[in-house]
Amino acid sequence: DQHLTLLAGPCAIESYEVCAQVAEQLKNLTDELKINFIFKSSFDKANRSSGSSDRGAGLEKGLAILDRIKKEYQVPIVTDVHESYQCQPVAEVADVLQIPAYLSRQTDLLVAAAKTGRVVNIKKAQFMAAGDLQGAIDKVIPYSNKILLTERGTMFGYHQQIVDMTNLLQLRQLGYPVIYDATHSVQVPGGHGNHSGGNRDFAFPLMRAALTIGVAGIFAEVHPNPPTAISDADNQLYLNKMRPILTTAAALFSQYQDQKESWDQDGLL
Amino acid sequence: DQHLTLLAGPCAIESYEVCAQVAEQLKNLTDELKINFIFKSSFDKANRSSGSSDRGAGLEKGLAILDRIKKEYQVPIVTDVHESYQCQPVAEVADVLQIPAYLSRQTDLLVAAAKTGRVVNIKKAQFMAAGDLQGAIDKVIPYSNKILLTERGTMFGYHQQIVDMTNLLQLRQLGYPVIYDATHSVQVPGGHGNHSGGNRDFAFPLMRAALTIGVAGIFAEVHPNPPTAISDADNQLYLNKMRPILTTAAALFSQYQDQKESWDQDGLL
Amino acid sequence: DQHLTLLAGPCAIESYEVCAQVAEQLKNLTDELKINFIFKSSFDKANRSSGSSDRGAGLEKGLAILDRIKKEYQVPIVTDVHESYQCQPVAEVADVLQIPAYLSRQTDLLVAAAKTGRVVNIKKAQFMAAGDLQGAIDKVIPYSNKILLTERGTMFGYHQQIVDMTNLLQLRQLGYPVIYDATHSVQVPGGHGNHSGGNRDFAFPLMRAALTIGVAGIFAEVHPNPPTAISDADNQLYLNKMRPILTTAAALFSQYQDQKESWDQDGLL
Amino acid sequence: DQHLTLLAGPCAIESYEVCAQVAEQLKNLTDELKINFIFKSSFDKANRSSGSSDRGAGLEKGLAILDRIKKEYQVPIVTDVHESYQCQPVAEVADVLQIPAYLSRQTDLLVAAAKTGRVVNIKKAQFMAAGDLQGAIDKVIPYSNKILLTERGTMFGYHQQIVDMTNLLQLRQLGYPVIYDATHSVQVPGGHGNHSGGNRDFAFPLMRAALTIGVAGIFAEVHPNPPTAISDADNQLYLNKMRPILTTAAALFSQYQDQKESWDQDGLL
Repeated sequence: DQHLTLLAGPCAIESYEVCAQVAEQLKNLTDELKINFIFKSSFDKANRSSGSSDRGAGLEKGLAILDRIKKEYQVPIVTDVHESYQCQPVAEVADVLQIPAYLSRQTDLLVAAAKTGRVVNIKKAQFMAAGDLQGAIDKVIPYSNKILLTERGTMFGYHQQIVDMTNLLQLRQLGYPVIYDATHSVQVPGGHGNHSGGNRDFAFPLMRAALTIGVAGIFAEVHPNPPTAISDADNQLYLNKMRPILTTAAALFSQYQDQKESWDQDGLL
Repeated sequence: DQHLTLLAGPCAIESYEVCAQVAEQLKNLTDELKINFIFKSSFDKANRSSGSSDRGAGLEKGLAILDRIKKEYQVPIVTDVHESYQCQPVAEVADVLQIPAYLSRQTDLLVAAAKTGRVVNIKKAQFMAAGDLQGAIDKVIPYSNKILLTERGTMFGYHQQIVDMTNLLQLRQLGYPVIYDATHSVQVPGGHGNHSGGNRDFAFPLMRAALTIGVAGIFAEVHPNPPTAISDADNQLYLNKMRPILTTAAALFSQYQDQKESWDQDGLL
Repeated sequence: DQHLTLLAGPCAIESYEVCAQVAEQLKNLTDELKINFIFKSSFDKANRSSGSSDRGAGLEKGLAILDRIKKEYQVPIVTDVHESYQCQPVAEVADVLQIPAYLSRQTDLLVAAAKTGRVVNIKKAQFMAAGDLQGAIDKVIPYSNKILLTERGTMFGYHQQIVDMTNLLQLRQLGYPVIYDATHSVQVPGGHGNHSGGNRDFAFPLMRAALTIGVAGIFAEVHPNPPTAISDADNQLYLNKMRPILTTAAALFSQYQDQKESWDQDGLL
Repeated sequence: DQHLTLLAGPCAIESYEVCAQVAEQLKNLTDELKINFIFKSSFDKANRSSGSSDRGAGLEKGLAILDRIKKEYQVPIVTDVHESYQCQPVAEVADVLQIPAYLSRQTDLLVAAAKTGRVVNIKKAQFMAAGDLQGAIDKVIPYSNKILLTERGTMFGYHQQIVDMTNLLQLRQLGYPVIYDATHSVQVPGGHGNHSGGNRDFAFPLMRAALTIGVAGIFAEVHPNPPTAISDADNQLYLNKMRPILTTAAALFSQYQDQKESWDQDGLL
């Protein structure tokens, strides 16, 4: 595509109101900036560090909210699935089914997602090299070739995560559009003992880096008031900062598109 | 307990015959050495690197084989579960339900396993610090306090895994019996491109190390002819080498039990 | 400064001719692109993986060549020092004394370099977090505040190195100009058994990433014919590709300079 | 050798008195337990995190103290060297010259140490795989084949270190006696911001692990009152706990010696 893709929204479906506020503003902004916008939010935080953390709206209520957002704001939807049985009902609403990073080796889940015919967004696990995602791709392609590959950072010791930007280059070679997840990549796993912390300030600089290296899209958690969010409070982006962030992102995307042929000819891509 | 616990058997349920051969010999050997033996085998390899790898017998056929082994050899059974719906049927046969390392943060799976009333063996994920397992424990204990914690190695860069033996000390402080997984710990993830390799020769030395540090039990994949196994061919132990291995293991276990009080008094445990 | 700084040249002083060829072309190119050029080459590869690898020209002969390059091409010189006694003679030629990454904790070497009054370029060790470089800075500042800080990648498991781009942001906070070493960062330590390999193709994309994140300068090994180089044959850049590389680098540097105030006002830098 | 070797003493030469106290007690204890004792202390902490940390006695005064200890207690001496010029004077007192881990690739230092004819103890760097030490060995053997190889832990992310016990097995295959450094292995690099922390409680369990895996010797920092030590206060062992520690160590060493032939015959070593 000639336009940047953006998968964004609040981490968890906290309420219709929060979803609607984010969807409306991002829809307007991305229309203006010619960015392909896909609204993202999770109906279930199925792998919270702690069992007593809020898990969000749940499957039924969550899908109803996503469906309302989809219709009211005319935006496609991406959300994640955690067990095989969820794929069918989720696919009735979501245009993109996302495989969480920890689950990216679960054959049954990948197959069930692929069989829905929806796009499957596979997040590369934090313990995986880029090439290892070929195994996940091979599980999907007998049923569907609508695949996205998302980089969301790599474990580096205990309670630490880094982004190895060469993964973007290597994922690209697998032949599917590569998305850079700008906010989970700056998580600090276990950073607050019983829940994850994050370095929100690193999200925009690393997003710029990914875009100048060359990606098809950006994934970002965006919230009207991140510190009050029920999850990823330390790394979600502020909704009211998305104008300068997305303006830069769209410009860097275009810049890469403009130069890639010339770099390719010079053997420099 | 005053005796070493051993969770062992072929990685996957390849056939009744392979299971029976391993169960019979290990049952005799562990009776002789006064080791608590729990037969282990997986009905489904649900997260193979490659979708075309053999996944084993499947739920129904696999449970039938495990049930037959249980009755014929009078041994308790441990096997792993991958999605919540499996916990109930599996618990009708298995005495211990094992949560795979990659899934050790999946709240629904932990809760479903706990609700069966069977022992839950939680494997610590390869991307987790020991203390992070408290989150998994907290998801189980509202329903059950029959918990085992298993160390199976930690990712170290791409395609590399190490064993940080201090995890055994830290897991012990969480208050549940600690098992050392001697064969998955020597896997080389992605070592053969599309499937994992392993360093079988490191399994016994590291097992000795774990036992002198102090663990309640050992987990080991054991096969009559590992190179022909459908999974973990490079790290399963040879059945015919289990006599010297288990003789040493039982001795090191006793030695630790004999000395721990004295070390504790010296502040050295 | 308002211009990009470039520390570049062949990894080792192989001969006057190779140095002169690189110096001449880079001098012309950087004059044209308004880049501050500092010629870099090492008189001694003092920590080769193997003792039988070629170590280069040696202190006396090497300094003579660097001195000739300096005068003929009117370029400042940077070269690395390995033991304290070398600092004084090296400082008679070199404008910048570079502390190798492995040696960045050696107090005597840092102090000896600082006492010469020359700029000290401290490379962050592959086993260090950004903030740890404060210790090295504190050893230099009693004698000199002319300091550069260089990021050159981080060990990630055995025989693997990654670049954690957040180090550039954190090094910047230490208050000195930050240089991104574009070619050592893509080394594969021990990649060829008895010597290091490298991923030359990753150098330019990661350099772009560093520049959009915001650095004062770029360090790069540049050789007329890298595969024949006595060291870093797999990661040195081709001299004849430096025009498109440096044109992009200068543009990204300017772009960052133009936007940083606006980003700073938005709390996004 | 049929006896365990112990390289031990206070981390830094703080004073003659501290050295003498440790040397006397360890000499008596190791005589009783039939352990080969080599007194270790450093005249210079040349790579402190912070330049303002105490570096110890210095070369001249330090060597004088080591010489006095050597003669009064009839013990061989091991101490570390940091630049080539130190090797000759140090070798006049020390029986073993130790190459610090960070410096284990410095060709000049290795060669200068080898040329003294003394034993060279090469510490494997925290960023090195076991096999990489072959490069260091190859630099020494043209001059001397009296070599020890020491494992002292491996960096795991930032500010974290682990011990990969398989390194002991792999170092052994390089053909020289392998020493396990029980106290540096439990350092927490940068654990206190401007100086390293440590987990003293892990030292004895990991030492047991190393001994049951099979090593020729143990290295340990031992101090009469570790919390007051000028360096490694968090990981040095208490002198008054060395009796139970060394009694166990000697027993585990003998146990390994007794069993290794049988394990070797079973292909299990």
